[in-house]
Amino acid sequence: MRTYPVEIAGVRRELPVVPVGEDVAVALLNLLGDTELTEAVADEMARRLPEGAQVLVTPEVKAVPLAHALSVRTGLPYVVARKTAKPYMRNPVTREVVSITTGKPQLLVLDGADVDKIRGKKVVIVDDVVSTGSTLKGLRELIESVGGEVVGVLAVFTEGNPRDDVIALGHLPLFKPEE
Amino acid sequence: MRTYPVEIAGVRRELPVVPVGEDVAVALLNLLGDTELTEAVADEMARRLPEGAQVLVTPEVKAVPLAHALSVRTGLPYVVARKTAKPYMRNPVTREVVSITTGKPQLLVLDGADVDKIRGKKVVIVDDVVSTGSTLKGLRELIESVGGEVVGVLAVFTEGNPRDDVIALGHLPLFKPEE
Repeated sequence: MRTYPVEIAGVRRELPVVPVGEDVAVALLNLLGDTELTEAVADEMARRLPEGAQVLVTPEVKAVPLAHALSVRTGLPYVVARKTAKPYMRNPVTREVVSITTGKPQLLVLDGADVDKIRGKKVVIVDDVVSTGSTLKGLRELIESVGGEVVGVLAVFTEGNPRDDVIALGHLPLFKPEE
Repeated sequence: MRTYPVEIAGVRRELPVVPVGEDVAVALLNLLGDTELTEAVADEMARRLPEGAQVLVTPEVKAVPLAHALSVRTGLPYVVARKTAKPYMRNPVTREVVSITTGKPQLLVLDGADVDKIRGKKVVIVDDVVSTGSTLKGLRELIESVGGEVVGVLAVFTEGNPRDDVIALGHLPLFKPEE
């Protein structure tokens, strides 16, 4: 299996490189089940937390353990933007985005109960990888539409084009699929 | 809003009671975003961890922060059974179950890379609420089909009928929808 070596917050991993379409392959980060890396990243992100942050928002699902671990360290609450509206949600608010790893339209949904935690607050978005920025853009719009102010974005990696609107602990290139 | 009061691991919550069909309503536990409760539950579950446990398995998504927090305390790795097979998974293994909160068929999927962490190991299943046991049954079958041995089940709550195959920190009744 093709891999790409990274060192993040003092932890080394060999990320599998997998095709996500005909023209591009990506190095896959998976925080789910990687307790050591998640804890190390949370330590580092806590040190880089934007000033004035009042609440963390993270998209379901791969950054959820990281958001929890960062919440433990900072004392800030976190909110998860879900992928689907659930029957039990009250007044959910939604945005549609397209994910690079699946290529499919994806919903971002805030439960009305969580909207109350965001309105009028300074929000930091927490994600694992920011690539095309599609999810990030959708999250920003969603947060601003309910009256939150995004004061920063924390990610483990940016991917593809470097970007200065994200506080990232590392950067991943895009790859060509193997011939 | 109708609520049901609980005290779990020393933390009190008023759970919203919501209808999930024509005949039944449930008290909704949501660990996503509830850092205080998740940490307290993980402390308590770590004390009740079945002997010999080598790996934790949890279904996506609501118990993911709990599995992470329990992994931190016990030093055991955890694996997340996903809801969909992803294009990047290698040799995924799946089971179909029906969830009480959505009423829809739901997949449980293990990535082949995670199968290697389960095969030949003593496994503890970690979940938020065990109700009909449908997800639990599917998880057991999935784990056993790849050569893991389920040595225990840890849940925050059992729901509906009490059951002695789950180590639960509390029990939730089912409710009738309001008339």
